[in-house]
Amino acid sequence: MRTLQGQQALMRIFIGEKDKYGKQPLYQAIVEMLRAEKLAGATVIRGLAGFGAKSHLHSANLLSLSQDLPMIIECVDSREHIDRVISKIDEMVCDGLVTIENVEVIRYAPKK
Amino acid sequence: MRTLQGQQALMRIFIGEKDKYGKQPLYQAIVEMLRAEKLAGATVIRGLAGFGAKSHLHSANLLSLSQDLPMIIECVDSREHIDRVISKIDEMVCDGLVTIENVEVIRYAPKK
Amino acid sequence: MRTLQGQQALMRIFIGEKDKYGKQPLYQAIVEMLRAEKLAGATVIRGLAGFGAKSHLHSANLLSLSQDLPMIIECVDSREHIDRVISKIDEMVCDGLVTIENVEVIRYAPKK
Repeated sequence: MRTLQGQQALMRIFIGEKDKYGKQPLYQAIVEMLRAEKLAGATVIRGLAGFGAKSHLHSANLLSLSQDLPMIIECVDSREHIDRVISKIDEMVCDGLVTIENVEVIRYAPKK
Repeated sequence: MRTLQGQQALMRIFIGEKDKYGKQPLYQAIVEMLRAEKLAGATVIRGLAGFGAKSHLHSANLLSLSQDLPMIIECVDSREHIDRVISKIDEMVCDGLVTIENVEVIRYAPKK
Repeated sequence: MRTLQGQQALMRIFIGEKDKYGKQPLYQAIVEMLRAEKLAGATVIRGLAGFGAKSHLHSANLLSLSQDLPMIIECVDSREHIDRVISKIDEMVCDGLVTIENVEVIRYAPKK
């Protein structure tokens, strides 16, 4: 198991719940790719509403026509590990936003 | 459609699910304002529990009295675009937290 | 009531929904500790899927065996206040990720 400490990178990928990669949901394909590439971790969060590059409103409201809710995938690792998967993500994501932030890791991995 | 690349700003607005703007849910009013102002995108996330400025605990637990869950609205755009809507947000939000972070945009908007 | 302005810190704690602290859910114990320590606020978000230090996949999918979903606790306050609770969090969290980011607080606490 790897450890992670100090200055690292947080990548966040904003896509739609209905986006596909082949026949698979895109968010699932991305998480599996991140795990296969041995990134330190990933978390998927479902949004309740939103709009993006194409400016259609995603919403879980009853009045909304769309059920294509926003999904955020977050991944913390070294900038080198993140950079290594960027080209794969670029190939998988057709319509979305990918951001990178600096974070300080205080703690990762089990004790002892 | 705009493109967004390199150093940009991430604004995050923490409010309550039951906060209103007129008769409308505040989070919805903010997302509509951000879209009307042509911000690049916004995502709404519902929290499960929390406490804020007034320090009452919001929670989705069965044991909780309150159902006023925390809501987070996230918006990535240039600092200039974010600054342009800050005064509107300040007028709309009575009780909440608004933060801005630096992010690097790797990818935004559809391919080709 | 405290006010918070300018450069502050955002702490994010990634744990599992089923993690315990004594008999209590860990995320709940952490939020209660943060409130008891008078931190400015905290928000709990439940993820939909993910993997972490031990690299087992947490997922809400029907096909998944695990229902131990990822939980994120977010807390914005001064770096001094965050640093003051880090050792408690370190004692409470057995397996997880804790990160700190710089944020600019534009607004906190009710008007007037």
